[in-house]
Amino acid sequence: MEQLIAKIKAIQAEVTAIEHAAALLGWDQVTYMPSGGAEDRGNSLAALSNIAHTKLTAPEIGEMLAELEPHIAELNPESDDVRWFKVTKRNYEKQTRLPAEFVMRFARETTIAQMKWQEAREKSDFSIFQPNLESLVEMAKEAAGFFAPYDHPYDALLDMYEPGMKTADVKAIFNDLRPRQVELIKAIMDSPQVDDSFLFQQFPKQAQWDFGMEVLNAFGYDFNRGRQDYTIHPFTTSFGVNDVRITTRILENNLVSGMMSTMHEGGHGLYELGLDPAHAYDALGSSASLAIHESQSRMFENLIGRSMPFWKHFYPRLQSYFPSQLGNVGLEQFYRAVNKVQPSLIRVEADEATYNLHIMLRLEVEMGLIEGKIAVAHLPEFWNSKMEEYLGVVPPDDAQGVLQDVHWSNGLFGYFSTYALGNLVSAQLWEVMNRDMPNLYEDIEKGKFYDLLTWLRTNIHNHGSRYEPQELIERVTGSRITPEPYVKYLTDKYSAIYKF
Amino acid sequence: MEQLIAKIKAIQAEVTAIEHAAALLGWDQVTYMPSGGAEDRGNSLAALSNIAHTKLTAPEIGEMLAELEPHIAELNPESDDVRWFKVTKRNYEKQTRLPAEFVMRFARETTIAQMKWQEAREKSDFSIFQPNLESLVEMAKEAAGFFAPYDHPYDALLDMYEPGMKTADVKAIFNDLRPRQVELIKAIMDSPQVDDSFLFQQFPKQAQWDFGMEVLNAFGYDFNRGRQDYTIHPFTTSFGVNDVRITTRILENNLVSGMMSTMHEGGHGLYELGLDPAHAYDALGSSASLAIHESQSRMFENLIGRSMPFWKHFYPRLQSYFPSQLGNVGLEQFYRAVNKVQPSLIRVEADEATYNLHIMLRLEVEMGLIEGKIAVAHLPEFWNSKMEEYLGVVPPDDAQGVLQDVHWSNGLFGYFSTYALGNLVSAQLWEVMNRDMPNLYEDIEKGKFYDLLTWLRTNIHNHGSRYEPQELIERVTGSRITPEPYVKYLTDKYSAIYKF
Repeated sequence: MEQLIAKIKAIQAEVTAIEHAAALLGWDQVTYMPSGGAEDRGNSLAALSNIAHTKLTAPEIGEMLAELEPHIAELNPESDDVRWFKVTKRNYEKQTRLPAEFVMRFARETTIAQMKWQEAREKSDFSIFQPNLESLVEMAKEAAGFFAPYDHPYDALLDMYEPGMKTADVKAIFNDLRPRQVELIKAIMDSPQVDDSFLFQQFPKQAQWDFGMEVLNAFGYDFNRGRQDYTIHPFTTSFGVNDVRITTRILENNLVSGMMSTMHEGGHGLYELGLDPAHAYDALGSSASLAIHESQSRMFENLIGRSMPFWKHFYPRLQSYFPSQLGNVGLEQFYRAVNKVQPSLIRVEADEATYNLHIMLRLEVEMGLIEGKIAVAHLPEFWNSKMEEYLGVVPPDDAQGVLQDVHWSNGLFGYFSTYALGNLVSAQLWEVMNRDMPNLYEDIEKGKFYDLLTWLRTNIHNHGSRYEPQELIERVTGSRITPEPYVKYLTDKYSAIYKF
Repeated sequence: MEQLIAKIKAIQAEVTAIEHAAALLGWDQVTYMPSGGAEDRGNSLAALSNIAHTKLTAPEIGEMLAELEPHIAELNPESDDVRWFKVTKRNYEKQTRLPAEFVMRFARETTIAQMKWQEAREKSDFSIFQPNLESLVEMAKEAAGFFAPYDHPYDALLDMYEPGMKTADVKAIFNDLRPRQVELIKAIMDSPQVDDSFLFQQFPKQAQWDFGMEVLNAFGYDFNRGRQDYTIHPFTTSFGVNDVRITTRILENNLVSGMMSTMHEGGHGLYELGLDPAHAYDALGSSASLAIHESQSRMFENLIGRSMPFWKHFYPRLQSYFPSQLGNVGLEQFYRAVNKVQPSLIRVEADEATYNLHIMLRLEVEMGLIEGKIAVAHLPEFWNSKMEEYLGVVPPDDAQGVLQDVHWSNGLFGYFSTYALGNLVSAQLWEVMNRDMPNLYEDIEKGKFYDLLTWLRTNIHNHGSRYEPQELIERVTGSRITPEPYVKYLTDKYSAIYKF
């Protein structure tokens, strides 16, 4: 048995090393690569991805897993070997259920669809993208079919990003959440609005960068084990547990955008830096799921980065970087401004109170498409009416409406929910953290994050993919993913800010 | 036949794509990688190198080549297919002659030897490195043995870097060259010395960088297809014919070091950028040899970058970057200073007149070791006496003597000659270029390099590895590699500067 495990782990280790290489190629592509390098880069990425896929889907792995299964069944279910076997088998099945022919066809379709989506968004003309979206929806259904039987065809899509999560669970969570968020927004909108105009003066890039680095250092981001660079679209990537890189975008006429992006990616990066090095090259060494990942980024961005204790410490620092712009702006005034709620058209710019509604709208769309209840041709219409219903705003064109996100053109169905689930999880964890660390707020007020990071490492990061997301959250908080703490967090925060 | 060629080319294309990925990993390692990333990076590089090696040495390639050979024999020997077959077969034999057991043992030995060399150099204690060097010399002999029969055991080592070049050729060239360079240096040393002290003031890094970029742009370096970055040891690397990157080192108290390194790597980079895109992914698409590569870098560094026409154009520009440091230094005075000759201990800092003697010393050492005529234990002694004989200087310790270069600890025997051969080739080409382009000096005086670069692209770069180096030089200059033009170039230049 040991031999079989070692053999599979050797393959996992080699593939991990190849995936790290591919991740670096992707990172360089959007940070330092000259424009001319695109075609050759595509060739290198395709070669690596092809090699990794071939190794991971080799039939001999399936045979070894089958041979292992009876032996594994006799072990302690909490042992590393059992946990490792479960994740390895799950991943192997996901990677092998889709036939090679489908994978290639899918790659071709998404390559074309991305170009069409880009063109459609530029011209704000949904009809350009419509036929491609139609075939991608058909392929999403086809993909789901390879995982039959299922309770709901959307289950298979969701499971790609949230192992073990069911469509019925997400629906139940969102149905509970939606009316309460809508009600909250209504209460906010009925109150006098906050002034945040001073956040949109000129803020030189270098000073914004330096402040961001100061915050990351305070969070405990170890720059011997990572970097931050500039990109148009911020992201986090990893080439090993000791080389985790984040990127940020800085807008000179918007202080919030870069600052929050830095903290958001910082949260993702800290998760990757906290994974267990002992499992760095096997199936237990990656993050638990996208929602758990997002819970970390949203925690640092929002629960910490938009909190009063945080700004008590950091606002004087920020003022010292921008004395002429912020010298006359008080702490309370600043705090209210970075928490301004304003229903808007674009998800990625949405505030904490409205963000989840953008996600819920997309889940409804995706499920409608997969169930065949919404025709792609009617999407713009459906989108706009839902935007009005949930957020009270109507996109003036499709570029700012149904065409705003890249995900569908990449064939990513089932992905969006993880953003909202991450928000809910962040608040669930936050409640427990405050119980476990009574001094948490005081620490943050002092710019101290050591205990906080240690807690996250011990309770979340270190476990990697050992537990499925629902299981992990239940172990840590005592309950599965639930909207209560998030709704309470939002209500407490905004009722104070908006005084209702 | 077409099918077999296509099959082998598909493997070459995949391996090229993997090698580009590995090259990026190496580049990042010395430019942006945080220190923590070293171990994971090593794993990724090992995985890629292992995959590439396995694919390139697959027995089926040997079988396909054998099957192809009779068909290839019937084709026009100048056809692409014949040239491609010749290079492919040569590379395959080089890669497969060394048994896997030897390759692994060699990798282990060099890994240890590098650490020991580093320690020995730090402590300036040759005895620390001696046993490792002894076993690497034995392994070099063993490696040569796998290529028997040969005229000289050193042939096989040389051929790794200079395809088709024979030890007897290099010896003949160097025997011809040595007395004339020694005589030239004597004449220089008997003349009044040049003052270059003003080159060692404070020169801010950014201004040095900006001047270097201006020169690279003038050379025709296309920054949509490449970059320059900082590293401790400058080098050139390529991730495809449209993404060629160079690095430079800048010392604030030395104006020459960074400037010349930028032009040197610029020459290497322009070669890579000029390779034929049609062969980018097959065996004809790489450079002809290390000597040909070095001829390009040395041409831009020395024949251009230390020439009067170049500085007629660029010196006023350089003065505008450093008005306080160079405002009172005249063009002639500056030109003489950047061409100062001073026999010194360290090869990489040697001037044009003395550089080749460093190389010839190393060739004598290497041949003595491989022939068994010099014992490793006697190396420091031999080194020091030769330094005195050729250059009139004696290293005060081994760190500045026999331990100065990294090459042997990497197992690189046969490599050094290519540096001197590159110098010779650069002058041979330069003669022809001046014949073909009567306005060459006037163009350079105007900062125009378009015709020069076009000539190099047409006559050298574009051919890639289609011709062996000697064949390539003979086609372009009418003779094989010969020291005459270089000796004439040095004599003309230094007799004017040193007035003898």
